Amino acid sequence: MHRLALTKPDGRALTLYGRVPLAGIGEAPSPFPEPLTHSPHLRRHVLRDEWVTYAAFRQDRTFLPPPEYNPLAVTSDARAPTELPVGNWDVAVFDNRFPSLALHVDEVPASIVATAAGIGKCEVVVFTQDRLASLGSLPLSHIHLLLQVWSERTVALGALDEIGYVLPFENRGAEVGVTLHHPHGQIYAYPQVPPVPARMQAVASNYYRTHGRGVLQDHIAREIESGERLLYRGDHAAAFVPACARYPYEVWVATIEPVATFSDLSDAQRADLARALKTVLMKYDALWDRPFPYLMAWYQAPTDGHAHPEAHLHAEFYPPYRTRDRLKYLAGTELAAGWFAMDALPEDKARELQAVVVDVEAA
Amino acid sequence: MHRLALTKPDGRALTLYGRVPLAGIGEAPSPFPEPLTHSPHLRRHVLRDEWVTYAAFRQDRTFLPPPEYNPLAVTSDARAPTELPVGNWDVAVFDNRFPSLALHVDEVPASIVATAAGIGKCEVVVFTQDRLASLGSLPLSHIHLLLQVWSERTVALGALDEIGYVLPFENRGAEVGVTLHHPHGQIYAYPQVPPVPARMQAVASNYYRTHGRGVLQDHIAREIESGERLLYRGDHAAAFVPACARYPYEVWVATIEPVATFSDLSDAQRADLARALKTVLMKYDALWDRPFPYLMAWYQAPTDGHAHPEAHLHAEFYPPYRTRDRLKYLAGTELAAGWFAMDALPEDKARELQAVVVDVEAA
Repeated sequence: MHRLALTKPDGRALTLYGRVPLAGIGEAPSPFPEPLTHSPHLRRHVLRDEWVTYAAFRQDRTFLPPPEYNPLAVTSDARAPTELPVGNWDVAVFDNRFPSLALHVDEVPASIVATAAGIGKCEVVVFTQDRLASLGSLPLSHIHLLLQVWSERTVALGALDEIGYVLPFENRGAEVGVTLHHPHGQIYAYPQVPPVPARMQAVASNYYRTHGRGVLQDHIAREIESGERLLYRGDHAAAFVPACARYPYEVWVATIEPVATFSDLSDAQRADLARALKTVLMKYDALWDRPFPYLMAWYQAPTDGHAHPEAHLHAEFYPPYRTRDRLKYLAGTELAAGWFAMDALPEDKARELQAVVVDVEAA
Repeated sequence: MHRLALTKPDGRALTLYGRVPLAGIGEAPSPFPEPLTHSPHLRRHVLRDEWVTYAAFRQDRTFLPPPEYNPLAVTSDARAPTELPVGNWDVAVFDNRFPSLALHVDEVPASIVATAAGIGKCEVVVFTQDRLASLGSLPLSHIHLLLQVWSERTVALGALDEIGYVLPFENRGAEVGVTLHHPHGQIYAYPQVPPVPARMQAVASNYYRTHGRGVLQDHIAREIESGERLLYRGDHAAAFVPACARYPYEVWVATIEPVATFSDLSDAQRADLARALKTVLMKYDALWDRPFPYLMAWYQAPTDGHAHPEAHLHAEFYPPYRTRDRLKYLAGTELAAGWFAMDALPEDKARELQAVVVDVEAA
């Protein structure tokens, strides 16, 4: 992995990554000439006892830009700067201009509920220079690089005292609210472990204390043994529709043996994880011969400096469709009760995805 | 309140409620001649340690029916039965034909995760015979009746050994996935307290032990004292955009003093709660002069037979819009992390709703 760290005119960081030595890189551009003054703040939800972020300036963020303007394209005209310079980079990471969490926060307004500064960091991860590509269409070596980038960002962000948890994710498709279709994801670095990973960590810790093994490790062994919902099984990684899926086309991708964070992956594990990931993404897009929308979230250990033998790096995909032309809406029982209801069996949805044959080498 | 209990030809229960004595009621109809054979089952989510319901037959449920067929209209032609008979009833409750939880479950398929029968009950609550009405357009006396119906159903369902929690809710609008626009809600009766109310109950219990008062009770006192986000304040009930809102137009409606369940409401409290509820609903629909979509959830105490001094009956509204023409999508940070991010301040959204003047008596 080759890297180059730059600073944008408005003070934001930009880091470029390549599979080959970086060359011909232009100045770090920014569509915004002035430094951003922003103060996201947190308020404590009194009934749920969890933080909610308020970042009012985010209303100004780019929304359905005209097709001729793509802020994630490289800057071809210095009079209309984008977020990215020309050059031979493969992946780019820069500070979100409209972060809902930031490392430096000026003021925290008073409220009748507990408040705090919205400390954290929000980064944009541009997967490729090709706006017509997708994560799944990238070569294995490019996806391999992205896994290294997520590792580097996890280490860099996790090393900050302010950061307690690093979550890379991708929202893909207009169906999940995406307005900018150049392939990209995001990294949210939270000041503490957020509610969902905290819940999963508590469950995993309890399981580890009782069984001396990982809960996901044991589940993956059962998925592989069953094979009924399996989509990929390599030497080091697997992908499957979990038996307890909450979304019809939900898929988990993970190493077979527990690995706490991206930075704990061996080269062989990383290579196989890239194959598993690309297999799933290609199956998704081939299923209905159109881009398949999803939320992809990567869960890993907290960055609190402690060992986390209970943690197991993995991705969870939550696609919004329940059939080719029907969306699954989260409504009463899911949002109000937190009790998911499925009208499809994971076995049936797995069969659909199993029937899609893909070749991760050929693509 | 006047009531009449009937049984449909396919064995499902139907109860009709009226403000005046019921008369001229026809036979209980059903669009489905045969009893339903169905076996929803539960699987334990291994990483979250929570139940997920699988009810595969639900894929056959009514979806975008042609405009000429409304299963919630009264049956005018015996050859094309709907769910409801003619008569002077105001509110009707019947067993959902496609329940994701049921009291009698035949078989539970084996899985590599823990499974259980999908025990529980799903009911449909028809708010009115008028398909062009809405909950907020109904007269106060009609809404008052609905609050009595929710009370009766909570008592009846909660009395069953199989039921641990009763959650009335309404999904409103195509934006939240509703395909049947006749005004109606649902009641889910769960075998145990679902994750979200369980979390709220744990927080409230902890607060009650420490302070000897209710967490929502104290919050409402602060909202009333501040007034900044207040939408309604009567002798017994209040409505406001909470200072810790997770949705831009989120509103809570509650009695000012804690009341554990619908059945603990005094007549005066119920009447004022109806006024608070109608005020919010009328403001919503008047804001943009069009039907305002939302999820409305009513939280109350578990039906476990114990006293719940920490519980405080209230409604939470989660509207999907963040501005007149922009939806708030739940994506990475909300769904994957459980950490909500808001680009609007509750104070600003409250001001918009405060500016809408409504008259609950005139409507």
